[in-house]
This record gives sequence, structure tokens and C-alpha cells, in this order.
Amino acid sequence: MQKPRVVIIGGGFAGMMCAKALKNTPAEVVLIDRRNFHLFQPLLYQVATGGLSPANIAAPLRSIFRRQRNVQVLMGSVSGFDRESSEVVLADETRWKFDYLVVATGSTHHYFGKDAQWEHLAPGLKTIEDATKIRRNVLLAFERAERSSDPEEIKRLLTFVVVGGGPTGVEMAGSIAELAKQTMRRDFRSIDPTQARVILVENSQHVLDRYHHSLSIRAAKDLLNMGIELRNETRLAEIHPDHVVVTSKGVSSIIETENVVWAAGVKASPLAQKLAEAYALGSQIVAGGRITVTPHCNLEGFRNVFALGDMTNFVGEDGKPLPGVAPVAIQQGEYVGKRINDMILGAASDKPFRYWDKGNMATIGRSRAIVESGKWRMTGKLAWLAWLFVHILYLARFENRVLVIFQWFWNYITRNRTARLITGEDASKS
Amino acid sequence: MQKPRVVIIGGGFAGMMCAKALKNTPAEVVLIDRRNFHLFQPLLYQVATGGLSPANIAAPLRSIFRRQRNVQVLMGSVSGFDRESSEVVLADETRWKFDYLVVATGSTHHYFGKDAQWEHLAPGLKTIEDATKIRRNVLLAFERAERSSDPEEIKRLLTFVVVGGGPTGVEMAGSIAELAKQTMRRDFRSIDPTQARVILVENSQHVLDRYHHSLSIRAAKDLLNMGIELRNETRLAEIHPDHVVVTSKGVSSIIETENVVWAAGVKASPLAQKLAEAYALGSQIVAGGRITVTPHCNLEGFRNVFALGDMTNFVGEDGKPLPGVAPVAIQQGEYVGKRINDMILGAASDKPFRYWDKGNMATIGRSRAIVESGKWRMTGKLAWLAWLFVHILYLARFENRVLVIFQWFWNYITRNRTARLITGEDASKS
Repeated sequence: MQKPRVVIIGGGFAGMMCAKALKNTPAEVVLIDRRNFHLFQPLLYQVATGGLSPANIAAPLRSIFRRQRNVQVLMGSVSGFDRESSEVVLADETRWKFDYLVVATGSTHHYFGKDAQWEHLAPGLKTIEDATKIRRNVLLAFERAERSSDPEEIKRLLTFVVVGGGPTGVEMAGSIAELAKQTMRRDFRSIDPTQARVILVENSQHVLDRYHHSLSIRAAKDLLNMGIELRNETRLAEIHPDHVVVTSKGVSSIIETENVVWAAGVKASPLAQKLAEAYALGSQIVAGGRITVTPHCNLEGFRNVFALGDMTNFVGEDGKPLPGVAPVAIQQGEYVGKRINDMILGAASDKPFRYWDKGNMATIGRSRAIVESGKWRMTGKLAWLAWLFVHILYLARFENRVLVIFQWFWNYITRNRTARLITGEDASKS
Repeated sequence: MQKPRVVIIGGGFAGMMCAKALKNTPAEVVLIDRRNFHLFQPLLYQVATGGLSPANIAAPLRSIFRRQRNVQVLMGSVSGFDRESSEVVLADETRWKFDYLVVATGSTHHYFGKDAQWEHLAPGLKTIEDATKIRRNVLLAFERAERSSDPEEIKRLLTFVVVGGGPTGVEMAGSIAELAKQTMRRDFRSIDPTQARVILVENSQHVLDRYHHSLSIRAAKDLLNMGIELRNETRLAEIHPDHVVVTSKGVSSIIETENVVWAAGVKASPLAQKLAEAYALGSQIVAGGRITVTPHCNLEGFRNVFALGDMTNFVGEDGKPLPGVAPVAIQQGEYVGKRINDMILGAASDKPFRYWDKGNMATIGRSRAIVESGKWRMTGKLAWLAWLFVHILYLARFENRVLVIFQWFWNYITRNRTARLITGEDASKS
């Protein structure tokens, strides 16, 4: 008898953990991803600011599953689904029949309807290419400022605007500030990098406003201490190559800058839409393009088709959708892997997925972070050490942990960032 | 009194060492490079095969000269020279007046007159972008083979042709073979990576034919033991997207492949030509576009204008031109730095540059290398350890040494290569 086939699309946290959970299952697992590696996205901002190399936070999927012989990794781009024949269709027209389907392709940037105009002016932070692009833009700004003799231009080049005061925006703003004010402090002869302005624009009243009020206040204080300008209750109205327009309480103002980093919004991967279409579940698509799933993480009416992670709308017991964070994806991946295993063995229970919220943490800068877990809260150096510990623990699933620990240690001691390279197509043209 | 200004173009070995040698000179040193980092080119092949990350072998020029306050680093592209006004002209039209000029912009690939047709089909290995491109091509070939069901296509995808049996070609061929036959041995489910063919095409009778005969014989043996096919006395006649044509002793044959790596020829950076034109020294340009310099490394008739390294034709005492290798560039950089210092202090002697040839070494693979120094020769594991030691010693000038040592150690133990990422523009499209 042929073994049932599980096709998993996406090698992020959800897809990877799902495939791992199928370790001992008598099934043929096919893991399809457009990239040949799993990316540890929570540390991508460190690549964008030269602290780590891309390879430090990426692990080849083939390495991860080398010893799990029931997994075949395929690098390929999925173009759609065929419900009739239970097949996944790849961009090269090949088709993969499945008995169980798991779709977990995450999210992408969302520019609130202005994707076409804003995308190239304000790169977001989702892929390695995004990170090296931001790294190039930020470092080139300092290089161009050093060569300039026009005080206005220098001021504009040394102004960095980060849009969005969530964890990614706070981490980016903190990292750019440290890069300018510490790492490169003595690197230039004409300009003074410590004069760089880093402006964090946040729509709501506070940065990190999903955290307990005392923590977002502390984070704001830390950011201000690092020399970052906070613009709360401020909306980005326009982005142009040499300036942005922001609006606060009805008043518009101009910030001259050539460097905008986008950390304000994400939407589901386009595959959520395609999945909904194929399974005639168009009405299940909610805001941000996410597809609603049942308490068992499958599509309504299709017990063997699952969608996980950032691309889904999973309504928790409190009636609120789960946030698009790594722990949700990890736990859903583990749950669905186990569920498929049980279904194959004919032992599936009715136990729905339950998210165990271990807490949230965000790092602000060197020795600065905030952590909350239930009613328990922590700030400052201890929180920062907790942040380090947890991230190394998660990274520990890769072979990269020692490299990262070592580089962090090194960068902490020397305040240096060794991966400060300007690379890519345009790098040598300027 | 204003300090004299030394303008150095190129932050490679020659330019970097020259600027360092001016450490205590009462001069204003301006170091101009198109990139913001110094690249340790001898290890670039390890980036191309996923053993190291780009940042591991690159050091930001600003970090290197942070404490040498008389050096200003400028990221910029030089478009020409103005002899009348003693100025260097940058692509953005800015001009830098100099009292002393040092040009050391190295070399680039040379496809023997077929640059336009061959360049994109057979990338060479000079820049970080070259290395990540080769890495992408090589890794993608395995990914595509895994997805293919056509035995002919699989065979073609798993055939790698390296053109040129010098040190770079030997290192590339050895690394690709190790990647296929060791690192990725158990990574695939449909294909067997150990069946990959690596073919090294060399025009002359032997690989590494500048070395003592016994060493090139040993290197050939090592390569054969690693499963590499040697095609000596073979000329590459044509390159096409899916095959190459090689000619040996008048007989042409076809090798089906989609992966050709170029390690066969280099020519001087185009700035050599521009320098010769500006100083009316067109007749001093020799084969490969290199510019002939005096025994003091300056241009004939211009005591304050120097050209160093790979882009120059420096005729040694034996009447032969010095080879385009790192030690020559390093020693010339040190010599010219010291000479300019002495000229500024009014104490320049007539002592010409003399190259101290400490010997040559090439690595072939894990525990395999050849070393020669004068009449002294070494092969095998000991030679490989010597190679490791020397490269770490040179890298020691950077802060990267510990990272590289650690990764080498790690890769040696695990036979893994952690930087096996397919990145770049087209990475997600296939």
C-alpha cells in the first residue's frame, strides 16, 4: 500500500515544525518552499544593520531534514491548487497530488493600498534581500554624506525614518541609532555620524502598544535615551524620494529624508487568496488577506487541508484573532503535524488547537529590552539577557547558534558590527 | 603649511598596505574605493561554495582605518585623471587634487576577446556578487535536478565545468566536488549528488603548471582521487547555455552542462588604460592591459604617480614580470607607502622595489594542498595545515579571524557548509 502523502508549502516556523512533527509518521512528506533555507525572521533586523550575516540566521532546509528520511524538500514556487484532483500546481506546471495539504507561506509587506508607489521607497523587512537592501541604503547614506559638501543634503542623508512602532520598528530604530552613534562613531572624517536623526513614526498613542502600559512607557524612555525621536499619534501621508509627509492631529509636516524603513503593516501571503478561491471559501478571507480556519486549523469543510501561521485568521477562545508571531506558527505547526499523524493512524481526537501564550518580548538596544509573561513583567538589562537567552534557545534548532552567540559577544565587547557590507547590483555604481 | 595629499585609489591589498605604511607621515591620505570594504580575495572561492559568508572575508575600510586619523576613506568610482591639474576625477564630477597618486585597482575577468558572449554564461570570481552568483548557480543546479524526471537533464545539471587549472580553478573544482560528494551527500531524495561530475579544463599540459613539476603531478593525483575529471591540453572553444565545446589536440567534443565557472584569465582594471592615456604612456601598456612601471613602482617620468599590484607590469630582476598575486601587491603597497613617506620628509633613496618571494601555496581540498618555497616543497595534510596557518595569519589583520577559524573548524568536523544560501534577484523565481 502506498503511503499517504503530506504536502507542506512553506518552510517557515509553521511548515518546518509541522514536518518535524511528522518524524515517525508512515507518510511521504513533501516540503515545498521558494527558497532553499529556513529563515529566522526575528533576527533579520540584525542583518539589516550589519550585526549578523544572512547565513547566520538561515539554515538550509535540506540540512534540517537530512536525517528525517520521510521528508523530501523541493525548491519551487506554488502557483495554485486543484481541489478536484487534490493537487498542488507549481509554477513550472508540475503537479503534486496530496492526501493532506498544509499551507503556511506567512505574510508580506502591506502599504495600505499604496504598495506600488511606496514599496521601492520604503523597503520592509521580510526576506534576506530586504535586509541587505536596507543595509545598503543605510550604509550608503553615510557614505554619500561623507562625500557631500552641502549641509542640507548631509542633514537629509543622515535622517532615518522608521514607520511603525511595533517590535520590528523599535528594533530597527534602535539598531540604526546604535550603528550611527556607537559603531561608526569614529569612522568618518567630514561628518559626525552621532548627529544622525532616527525618527520612529507610530500611528497610535504609544510604541509597542500591545504591551502593558508600563512597558511601552519604559520602551519609549529607552528609545529617547538612545537619541531616537518618537512621533506618536502620527500618520505617514506621503513618501517621496527626498522627503516624507507626516500628519499628526490634523497638522501636516515634512521630514527631509532619503531613508524610510517600513515596519508598519503586513498582509497574508497571496496563497491565502488562492487557497480560498480553490476551496470556494472567498467569504472566509478577512482583513489583511488572511484566511479563516477552524479550531483544528483546517479549512471549513475540508478536514485534510490546513492553513497555519501569519497567513491565517485563527480566532482564539477569547474571540480575538491570534497575533502573527513566531510562537503561534511554531505551536500550530506542531499541532497540525501531530493531528495529521493521528489521522493517518486513525486516532485523531477532537481536541482543538490552543495557543499557549508564553509571553512577549522586544529588544530596544544594547542592554535594553522589555519582557512580559502573564502578569509578570521585566525591563532593562535582565530583560535583555532573557531576550538573548530565548533567541539563542530557538536558534539552537540550527547549527548556527554558536556563530551567533560568538558574534553577539564580539559585537558587545567591541561595539563593532562586522557585517557592514554594501553589496548588490547597484553597490558599485554610486 | 598645508600637508601634502596622497590619493590612493583601490582598497585591495596594495592600496590598503600603502595607506597603512603612511601611518606616521605628515600627509593627508585619501583612500578611494568603489566598495566600502576590503575583500580578502584568496578565500572568495569558499563563499562561492557556501563555506563562508561574504562578511567573513570582508572588512569595512572605515573600520580598518578608524584609528589612523590621517586617512579619509571615500566610497566613489574614479572616472579619470587630469595630469595638468594633478587631479583625480570621480564619476560624480568631483575632483581630488593630489601631490602623490597611487593607483591600485587590481584586475578583472578576461574572456580572451569573447567577454560580451561568455561573461554571463561563465561567471568568474572577483567580487562578492560573483561569489554569491556562482553559489546560486551551483546550488540551483542541484535543486533543479532534484525536481527533474529527465535523466539527460539531470546529468547535464549535475555536470560542472571549471575553466582554468590555476590555483583558483583548482580550489573551485575541489570545493564543488566536496560540496556534492560530502556536504550534500545525504540531502536529496531523488538524485544522488555524489554522481555529480566536476570537470577541470586546462589549456596547458598540467594543472598548477607554475609550480614544480612534482607538485603539479601530486595536485593532479589529489584532484583525481576526489573524483574530479581533468582535461589537460584542452581549450574551451564555445560556451552555450546548455553545453560547452572543448578542443583537445585538434579534436572537438561537447560537454553538456549548464554550469561553467571561469578561472582562466584576468586583465588589468580599466583604470590602467586611463592612467596610461592621461600620462601619454600608451606604449607602456602590455598584454592583459597592464601598465609598465619603473623599478620604483612609479610611471616613467612621473616620480609622484605610482601604480601597484595586479594592474601593473613590473619587470623583476630576472627580466620576468611579477605574478599577479597578493604577496606582490602587499609588498609593493608597503614599499610605495614608505617611499612616499621618505619623499615627503625629503629623504627618499634610490632603492628600487624588490619582491621577496616567500613561496606559493594552493589548496585542493580537505587535508590536501601543495606548498613550495624556494627549493622546499610540501604536500598533503601538512601542506594543508600550512595553508590554513598562512591564511589565518593574513586574515588576522581583520577582526574576522576568529569567525573564520571557528567556521573552518566547524565545517571540518561536521563536513557541513552553513552558508549554502540561494539569494539574489532571481533566487525566488525559479
